[in-house]
Amino acid sequence: MAENNSDLMSICKRRGFIWPSFELYGGVAGMYDYGPLGCALRNNIVEVWRSIYKGREGFVEIDSETVGPREAFKASGHVDEFSDYITYCKGCQAPFRADHMVKEFYENPDVLGPRELEEAFVKHGVTCPECGGELGPVEEFNLMFKTNIGPGSARVGYLRPETAQGIFVNFPNLYRYNREKLPLGVIQTGRSYRNEIAPRQGMIRMREFNQMEVELFVDPEDKDWARFHEIENEVIELVPNTGEETISITVGEAVEKGIIANRVLAYFVYTTKQLLVKLGVDPARLRFRQHLEDEMAHYAADCWDAEALLSFGWTEITGIADRGCWDLTRHAQFSGTELTHFKKFDEPREVEMEKVKAKHKALGPAFKGKAKAIATAMESMSPSDVKDGKLVIDVDGERIELTEEFFEVAMVKEKITGERVVPHVIEPSHGLDRIFYTVLEHSFDYDAEKDYAVLRLKPQVAPVKVGVFPLMEKDGLDDMARSIYDRVHSHRMEAYYDGSGTIGKRYARMDEVGTPWCITVDYDSLEDGTVTLRDRDTSEQVRIPSEKASEILGKLLDGMAFSEIGI
Amino acid sequence: MAENNSDLMSICKRRGFIWPSFELYGGVAGMYDYGPLGCALRNNIVEVWRSIYKGREGFVEIDSETVGPREAFKASGHVDEFSDYITYCKGCQAPFRADHMVKEFYENPDVLGPRELEEAFVKHGVTCPECGGELGPVEEFNLMFKTNIGPGSARVGYLRPETAQGIFVNFPNLYRYNREKLPLGVIQTGRSYRNEIAPRQGMIRMREFNQMEVELFVDPEDKDWARFHEIENEVIELVPNTGEETISITVGEAVEKGIIANRVLAYFVYTTKQLLVKLGVDPARLRFRQHLEDEMAHYAADCWDAEALLSFGWTEITGIADRGCWDLTRHAQFSGTELTHFKKFDEPREVEMEKVKAKHKALGPAFKGKAKAIATAMESMSPSDVKDGKLVIDVDGERIELTEEFFEVAMVKEKITGERVVPHVIEPSHGLDRIFYTVLEHSFDYDAEKDYAVLRLKPQVAPVKVGVFPLMEKDGLDDMARSIYDRVHSHRMEAYYDGSGTIGKRYARMDEVGTPWCITVDYDSLEDGTVTLRDRDTSEQVRIPSEKASEILGKLLDGMAFSEIGI
Repeated sequence: MAENNSDLMSICKRRGFIWPSFELYGGVAGMYDYGPLGCALRNNIVEVWRSIYKGREGFVEIDSETVGPREAFKASGHVDEFSDYITYCKGCQAPFRADHMVKEFYENPDVLGPRELEEAFVKHGVTCPECGGELGPVEEFNLMFKTNIGPGSARVGYLRPETAQGIFVNFPNLYRYNREKLPLGVIQTGRSYRNEIAPRQGMIRMREFNQMEVELFVDPEDKDWARFHEIENEVIELVPNTGEETISITVGEAVEKGIIANRVLAYFVYTTKQLLVKLGVDPARLRFRQHLEDEMAHYAADCWDAEALLSFGWTEITGIADRGCWDLTRHAQFSGTELTHFKKFDEPREVEMEKVKAKHKALGPAFKGKAKAIATAMESMSPSDVKDGKLVIDVDGERIELTEEFFEVAMVKEKITGERVVPHVIEPSHGLDRIFYTVLEHSFDYDAEKDYAVLRLKPQVAPVKVGVFPLMEKDGLDDMARSIYDRVHSHRMEAYYDGSGTIGKRYARMDEVGTPWCITVDYDSLEDGTVTLRDRDTSEQVRIPSEKASEILGKLLDGMAFSEIGI
Repeated sequence: MAENNSDLMSICKRRGFIWPSFELYGGVAGMYDYGPLGCALRNNIVEVWRSIYKGREGFVEIDSETVGPREAFKASGHVDEFSDYITYCKGCQAPFRADHMVKEFYENPDVLGPRELEEAFVKHGVTCPECGGELGPVEEFNLMFKTNIGPGSARVGYLRPETAQGIFVNFPNLYRYNREKLPLGVIQTGRSYRNEIAPRQGMIRMREFNQMEVELFVDPEDKDWARFHEIENEVIELVPNTGEETISITVGEAVEKGIIANRVLAYFVYTTKQLLVKLGVDPARLRFRQHLEDEMAHYAADCWDAEALLSFGWTEITGIADRGCWDLTRHAQFSGTELTHFKKFDEPREVEMEKVKAKHKALGPAFKGKAKAIATAMESMSPSDVKDGKLVIDVDGERIELTEEFFEVAMVKEKITGERVVPHVIEPSHGLDRIFYTVLEHSFDYDAEKDYAVLRLKPQVAPVKVGVFPLMEKDGLDDMARSIYDRVHSHRMEAYYDGSGTIGKRYARMDEVGTPWCITVDYDSLEDGTVTLRDRDTSEQVRIPSEKASEILGKLLDGMAFSEIGI
């Protein structure tokens, strides 16, 4: 395990996992580029996530734009609420995040308001860490990157702070796509943006970051999940908000005891554990912490953070929330469009309700040929349209005022086939960069015997699957190795040809970037066509026929062991 | 073939390929979201591109940030050059792209300057199309979305106008990753942004769009490609800039005749054809047009556009350019960092050059103990440092002026092992949304016999690979169909279960979204375990054992025909 993350970060940079962005121009804080190995690792993580949500659960994936108009983010609450408190030094004008300036003095400084923060500066003698100057007033700083769409400043736009909103605003399209049925599961991966005041902690707090979000729309009265029984006896590590202790408990029991609010939320808390462990997060360094009452968004029914133990301490890498009807209600309110599900009853229900009924006997003589049209128009109106005992209707452009002589408001029994409900949202929201970093930190191992660092990445996510080496770059060994490389390498089974340095050095280079297997071509290979296949973690070496290399690597990648393949 | 694109666009919207973004809030011109089928199709296109560049050619993929600091885009030329001419109506203030206002009167209005455009308005009586008002002065409008990074306006940032720059600014990292060797091939896919004044033409001109870019760094003196011989006899349709005619010519001949500038560029022009045809672009509606002399960027040695014939006319969907040393030279100049390749000679070369040589015999007596340090300092200087017969050097902080008594400038012979060169860049730059749209338009077919639209998508890119239907949703047919669905469906082999409507309607629904195969479970299936497999294009139906469905679909997806699988 890495004592701190500096060895790992140095490997990441040197070997091409991640690079600080725009280093040529002095870099930009909170921004990183994914190099060749990082990009491959990250894409592999996304594929595993897709295999669970698109593959196993049958959710659909969409991809929405990253720039959006102000109206959408006004509705989502980000224009008004997505902000941190900022203070500028009165001397050097340097900006600081106000709550970070007093974090030594308060356990939870982010609950302090602007005046309290200013008072805290005075009380604790906090000054500018750069120049010692006095800190200025505390103000709100909105964390969305702002821009203008089109010429002029007529239409203000923002870079999205989360991919989720692109799913919510497409609810009518998605609901139609799903043939107006619930549950409706939708996933999206892509960039989101948070214009941090002063980003620190490397990949944990980035200004431009990557998410894998899942929005599951469910019937508010049916928070169950068909596959729940498959996982109800599985154990999970929870930190409920009633205490500070981590408890190990089955998923089923957690729901029965009311620790997790409902079965569908619990199912996706556990799915998150499955996903993270499959990616290579160490289960012993993973827990699920329930949000404290004052930490939870006011609309959330329940919320759990998947936290990984990193060199920074316990860090949120995924949040799984029951967001209730908040998102759709807000967008319905701000857009003036109904965003509901028509929930058909198993059988029609008879309900009693007040209705406007026409008095046909009075209408006929009074209105003759128009009587029928008037009756129809009246009966389509609601009892609340009756003002001072009168109803005003429009028939063929003519305005007609009718007294109670012509209608009555009466209780009637009606059969209704269903009702409109606002779906609730279950949201597993994954911080892709944080998961990427966690996978690297939890895979990092210093191999004392070999005296070098090994990344014990799971084969499915490893950027390079196999190193291919000729013992020497001569005598045809190199040609044979190249031809094996050509045969096994594809964009989904990345191979790396390496002909330089001792074999030991080449193994070390592959171990350092987490390559699970290496193939070496030696002089025996020229005789009998076999090559050496070596396992990264056991260092076990077996000889295999070179023409079977692709097939064997495929099986290993599917999770089979050497012995199961009969090698 | 679609007479116009309105049928296609209506299918795209109705069936969930693409949706105008933020429709709930009135939409944003030039922005589209990818729905479930569109997102899958787009991801499949990206995978085919990766299979060629990462898989076959062994290029590496990176992923860089989309927001960048001003300095980077100053260097790339976008701050100064990436603009269109804009004019506002003096009456209603509506903005217009100035050259579009006079396109009826000029064949090539985008070569007109601002004063010429203003004169053209007057000459041709062009007024505001909205209100008839007078058009105001013509100004430059920069097309990058602008924002601020961090608090305040201290650091101006832009949304990248192309993914390419993220590769260029990472050249030092990438060059190190490639062990300081050329060629170095790098790919990147992701969002880019162009804040159009008034976007039209649907997916062809988007404000937020997707690219698949390839940057290949090569030795400027070696513009060949090892695999060139594999494709030199293949035929390609070219429109050279010496005329307007389309010629069919082999790739080899096009290079020999000097039509395409060099072999490596020609190889990637042809690779682009391979890619596009593999994706489903109709070769009969594809041509490669060479940029005209005045259309070509001043730095480009040669540039070809892959153009597809769409309902809009011939439209650029990919550009393949030899960008020379432009990009690296500019970034080197603006960042002050050398961006070169050290090109080792096959064997050291002896060169004659002028050098400053110390006169040790004179230095010793004059400077005693310091003589050696002075001689070393002098010999590290260049002949051009000699001013008025004197050299000024710094030794241990002391400034010493030396006359020709102490040195001479002489021709010396030296062995050098190599030289530094600025790599040239070959860039195949793909407009992903445009390719996506072209694939749809070229696949669109109205089947007169069936009397409905069929998308004849290539199986590899089709969003859904197989529809799975029970003949009726009862008697266990539905259970059997569900279990086949569960077995064949994965995130890479998407299946779609459909139990409603007649089988004919279900086939039609799948044909309309390009699903290549359908499986139907009927009463015989319950008896003998076989199901019907139907081909979209031939309507051929065969019975296959249901337990072999996955295996058979896998083979069909690999391109095998029914007869080759023995069914």
